[in-house]
Amino acid sequence: MSLDGTYDRGNIFAKILRGEMPAARVFEDEHVYAFMDVFPQARGHTLVIPKHSQARNLLEEEPQVLSELILGVQRVTRAVRAALNPDGIVVTQYNGATAGQTIYHLHFHIIPRWEGQPLGRHAAGGMADPAELKVLAEQIAAKIA
Amino acid sequence: MSLDGTYDRGNIFAKILRGEMPAARVFEDEHVYAFMDVFPQARGHTLVIPKHSQARNLLEEEPQVLSELILGVQRVTRAVRAALNPDGIVVTQYNGATAGQTIYHLHFHIIPRWEGQPLGRHAAGGMADPAELKVLAEQIAAKIA
Repeated sequence: MSLDGTYDRGNIFAKILRGEMPAARVFEDEHVYAFMDVFPQARGHTLVIPKHSQARNLLEEEPQVLSELILGVQRVTRAVRAALNPDGIVVTQYNGATAGQTIYHLHFHIIPRWEGQPLGRHAAGGMADPAELKVLAEQIAAKIA
Repeated sequence: MSLDGTYDRGNIFAKILRGEMPAARVFEDEHVYAFMDVFPQARGHTLVIPKHSQARNLLEEEPQVLSELILGVQRVTRAVRAALNPDGIVVTQYNGATAGQTIYHLHFHIIPRWEGQPLGRHAAGGMADPAELKVLAEQIAAKIA
């Protein structure tokens, strides 16, 4: 799929935002919604998305929405660190299928890294246990400042 | 190296900002500076950094600086797309050595992707030809909107 296209209101993240799909919620404010990735590349893999957006990717986003989004990413990244104490954290954002994007609602990945633990491939490890994701979400949520 | 530490004013990006090291500049405004990565993981691999910052990573950055930075990232990402027409673009940011960070001045990577072309490993391909980087920088700079 190319970088061009039309926003599909039926995408999974739009469904989560409308409450039509479950998610292990970490944080929510006026601007952003954060939740656990169900195909985690590492323990604590969290996603942050804009709540009021029809941007498929970073290229399309409104500047004001993007500014609020990155502040939400920072806030959640700090909480992931405080909750899980990783050695490092990757913050990444994919534009287009060739770049690794699978859901076409702009999102940032927050992926904790631990020394000696290679990154899993997205979806290769299968879907995570929802109960485990809920525990992680609560641990991270408790550290939101 | 852990996520903790003190900003080192002798880091390479600080030297570039002070004009003490050369760089293939793509774009510069009041807030951000963009230039070609000398160890590109793909053709057109561009970096965007805050000009007025002593943040080692995303965790440490001032909200206002971070907001301006992501808008610069968006602007340069659009120009990379317009100049090079990649199939996808990865935007990524590393916090800590374990996450892949090598220079401790906050920076975002903009990495174009083409179908069927695997991503190179940072530095594994050696340093890029400065003349080639200059041409790429000019191509991208011409598309800054």
